[in-house]
Amino acid sequence: MTHFMNSKEDIVTEAIDGAITASGGALSRLDGYPHIRVVLRSDWDRSKVALVSGGGSGHEPAHAGFVGRGMLTAAICGDVFASPSVDAVLAGILAVTGPAGCLLIVKNYTGDRLNFGLAAERARAFGHKVSMVVVDDDIALPDLPQARGVAGTLFVHKIAGALAERGADLETVTARAERVIAGTSSIGMSLDTCTVPGSPKEHRIPAGMAELGLGIHGEAGVEQIAYLGAREAVAAMAEKLSRSMRDTPHVALLNNLGGASVLEMSVLATELVRSDIGGRIGQLIGPASLMTSLDMRGFSVSVLAAEADDLDLLAAPSAARAWPGCVALQPAVVVPLPNGLMPIKAMPSPHAATRDFLVTCCNIMIAAEHDLNALDAKSGDGDTGSTLAGAARALLGAMDQLPLADHTQLYRAIGQELSQTMGGSSGVLLAIFFAAAGDASSSGLPMREALCAGLDRMQQIGGATLGDRTMVDALKPALDALDKGLAAAAVAARTGANHTATLTKAGAGRASYINAEQLAGHVDPGAEAVARLFEHLAA
Amino acid sequence: MTHFMNSKEDIVTEAIDGAITASGGALSRLDGYPHIRVVLRSDWDRSKVALVSGGGSGHEPAHAGFVGRGMLTAAICGDVFASPSVDAVLAGILAVTGPAGCLLIVKNYTGDRLNFGLAAERARAFGHKVSMVVVDDDIALPDLPQARGVAGTLFVHKIAGALAERGADLETVTARAERVIAGTSSIGMSLDTCTVPGSPKEHRIPAGMAELGLGIHGEAGVEQIAYLGAREAVAAMAEKLSRSMRDTPHVALLNNLGGASVLEMSVLATELVRSDIGGRIGQLIGPASLMTSLDMRGFSVSVLAAEADDLDLLAAPSAARAWPGCVALQPAVVVPLPNGLMPIKAMPSPHAATRDFLVTCCNIMIAAEHDLNALDAKSGDGDTGSTLAGAARALLGAMDQLPLADHTQLYRAIGQELSQTMGGSSGVLLAIFFAAAGDASSSGLPMREALCAGLDRMQQIGGATLGDRTMVDALKPALDALDKGLAAAAVAARTGANHTATLTKAGAGRASYINAEQLAGHVDPGAEAVARLFEHLAA
Repeated sequence: MTHFMNSKEDIVTEAIDGAITASGGALSRLDGYPHIRVVLRSDWDRSKVALVSGGGSGHEPAHAGFVGRGMLTAAICGDVFASPSVDAVLAGILAVTGPAGCLLIVKNYTGDRLNFGLAAERARAFGHKVSMVVVDDDIALPDLPQARGVAGTLFVHKIAGALAERGADLETVTARAERVIAGTSSIGMSLDTCTVPGSPKEHRIPAGMAELGLGIHGEAGVEQIAYLGAREAVAAMAEKLSRSMRDTPHVALLNNLGGASVLEMSVLATELVRSDIGGRIGQLIGPASLMTSLDMRGFSVSVLAAEADDLDLLAAPSAARAWPGCVALQPAVVVPLPNGLMPIKAMPSPHAATRDFLVTCCNIMIAAEHDLNALDAKSGDGDTGSTLAGAARALLGAMDQLPLADHTQLYRAIGQELSQTMGGSSGVLLAIFFAAAGDASSSGLPMREALCAGLDRMQQIGGATLGDRTMVDALKPALDALDKGLAAAAVAARTGANHTATLTKAGAGRASYINAEQLAGHVDPGAEAVARLFEHLAA
Repeated sequence: MTHFMNSKEDIVTEAIDGAITASGGALSRLDGYPHIRVVLRSDWDRSKVALVSGGGSGHEPAHAGFVGRGMLTAAICGDVFASPSVDAVLAGILAVTGPAGCLLIVKNYTGDRLNFGLAAERARAFGHKVSMVVVDDDIALPDLPQARGVAGTLFVHKIAGALAERGADLETVTARAERVIAGTSSIGMSLDTCTVPGSPKEHRIPAGMAELGLGIHGEAGVEQIAYLGAREAVAAMAEKLSRSMRDTPHVALLNNLGGASVLEMSVLATELVRSDIGGRIGQLIGPASLMTSLDMRGFSVSVLAAEADDLDLLAAPSAARAWPGCVALQPAVVVPLPNGLMPIKAMPSPHAATRDFLVTCCNIMIAAEHDLNALDAKSGDGDTGSTLAGAARALLGAMDQLPLADHTQLYRAIGQELSQTMGGSSGVLLAIFFAAAGDASSSGLPMREALCAGLDRMQQIGGATLGDRTMVDALKPALDALDKGLAAAAVAARTGANHTATLTKAGAGRASYINAEQLAGHVDPGAEAVARLFEHLAA
């Protein structure tokens, strides 16, 4: 089984139940399972013209997703890709039709036309006013006298639905639906076929090809064309649509046939607006999954030469869950980049003692390069020493540019320098350490407390805690002991570093991907670097 | 190329442009292409706490789809499955942060944590108040100290976003975000891997298997399990989620990982509510594509032990396009079937002349069975004669049950009888013909006009016009000529029927799939049946 379902026989009723569940009470259904599957607006009072649509399932969210105030009153759901029965349609009509009558919106497939048509006759025999429109928006086969009904049906649902909601009578709603159908054209394209529940997948479209002019039931497209990319794909469709478009502003509907990712659909939206027909598109619906063909990796574009009163109805709010809205296209607003992306360079300032201290620290790191690399080779890629020594050399080179006389600025400047020269996670983490220490220093904390604040932030961001086999295992005890003097700090750092050799499970950082046997007996190179620093400073 | 894109390098910027286009002006972006890709609320005035989120692309609609009033203020977009740069994050923070400060909502991946973390430090150096929360909702690896951040992030976006929109301060919004994170658990399942733009697809999951406990970057799941169907799949996930759920009502979020069809997602919604944790789910978000993994054929379930004040914020309206809303679960309303589905049987009534006429008609059809079958074999499956003769025999058998004395009721009763006994399109079409004739008769039209009204309706529903090589080619001229008498009608019917032999392109019905050579020279069997009927009646 390649679908999230339980059985082919239950997929439609279970999906309807899911749609009703997800509606939070907005949708109901008729008590006609398994054969009569009709989804209804829960808030319907028969006071206005009812709109009934439907057809085979497999096109979700059509049609149950469009049931709601301002769109459909009821959706009749057949089996996957199969027309619902006359009885099911009749049940739907009878359940929702009041004195104002009912409009059936049918996609142009023989089964749907006949079954909805006969159900309409039966309903009329009960004295109901029922009219029916047939949507035939597909332009894939321009010579076909009976064009298919595809995603352009949504224009009819929305415009007729909003009109009915405003209280228009059946004749008015029907006439408007007919006008919308006459002004609508659609075409689809796909890179792969859909998989029908319970059936083997038909691998019909070779790699590198696309099908143009397909319907929504997995039927083959009119032609297979070389697929060169989104731009060319939209251009080929735009060319076909263009022939049936007027020179007036259109509403475009960009429909996901089910299996295209949201990322791709957004790229297609960009291409549609950029295409040759983009200039004639004033409003956009989607991109969204509206009238799908199961999981087909494809999309369709529908265009409607909408008149002003259509736009008003398209923009009207609807309670239907799957309606994505209709927006007016407008030039994208591009906001200038904010100031502050270029790092603020503090003014250099001399301070002999601080300079000496920093130079000493750097030299300690440079001297430890070989040992730290060797240690890192036991648990990583053997470059910890080189990374730290490289950063130390860069810091030595930048020494005269640093604000040595201003500790707050100095922390930040060191952080900036390290993030630019060290690279990788450790560079970012040390940059965070120094930047946060600078923050703390700027609010008046003394050195030890500022460094502790830096460590806290580094731990918060990096996620390492004591015992995770990182530099924190030496640095944290050292800073904690620093108020007792450098010697105490050095002892604490060494004790912490040595302890890492007994930790065989690393909790953070790259060593967490190494197994226990490889780690046992080796001190973490980051912790070792910290221990050496404190030991040399204390010496 | 298997994606709707132009190039791997441009896919993110082009998708952002598409999202901005589809927003109708609600979204803007920073002028930082190609490296700084930041989407902003167009209506932002910095008067409240700003919410910034983001990460790698490929998770659409996350995160740009959740930018809008009541959710995110800005989304920072990295390359597909790659963290955005520190500069990009910093640009976003600086662009939206005012005196109320900024909350960064980060999913727990090292790159995101470090880059957002360092950007936060830089922004603080400008005097901005910036806090950061890390979402780690994935329970796939319960022993992992650093759990991944997946779709549960949406709870944080929505609750913190609504709280900030109401004017809460940064500390309050941050604390609430932390509380929501602590109360959230998620797990995912997939039937197939995602396809990364520009990379070959990794076929890792064998047919019949599902991966449980996967992330949102195409990484392998914790385990592969036999896939037995939607119910068992949800049960396996519910069992894992159950361990981290409290005994209080939860909000569940049902997320499409990108490639599951809308039909399937609805089935999964049904199964989720039916599952062992269903009783603890009080509210539902989705099913919807919220935090995808490109086109992965999978889904995830997130649960939040929401407190009352969370529910209020979850239910608050949001302008973010991709937010599907949060609904309270309630028992499905099942409406009784309407009356009227059982056909109304008119009272039988005797009428000798009408009975004789109908018996004659039936016998004509029965006598023509062999000839009509032979004719149909030229262009169809050779059963037109048998279908009509079978219907005629059924009608003869039902003769004493018909309301022969009441023409209006008789039309309808014949239509009912034919729709039950004939089957197929022709049965439905003749049922429509007689039902519509009955309607016309009930409004006072005489026989010929009533039959013409029936024909009009049959043509409207069936779509056949004159010249389409159907029974209409004989029936329409016959009815038109009927006011000059039966003889004239018979001549017209025969002329029309014979003309169909010259029509080599059928416009409606099954013969439209037959090529011209096969049709040439053969009268349409439906038209022939009509001609024989009128000829025998006139004789």
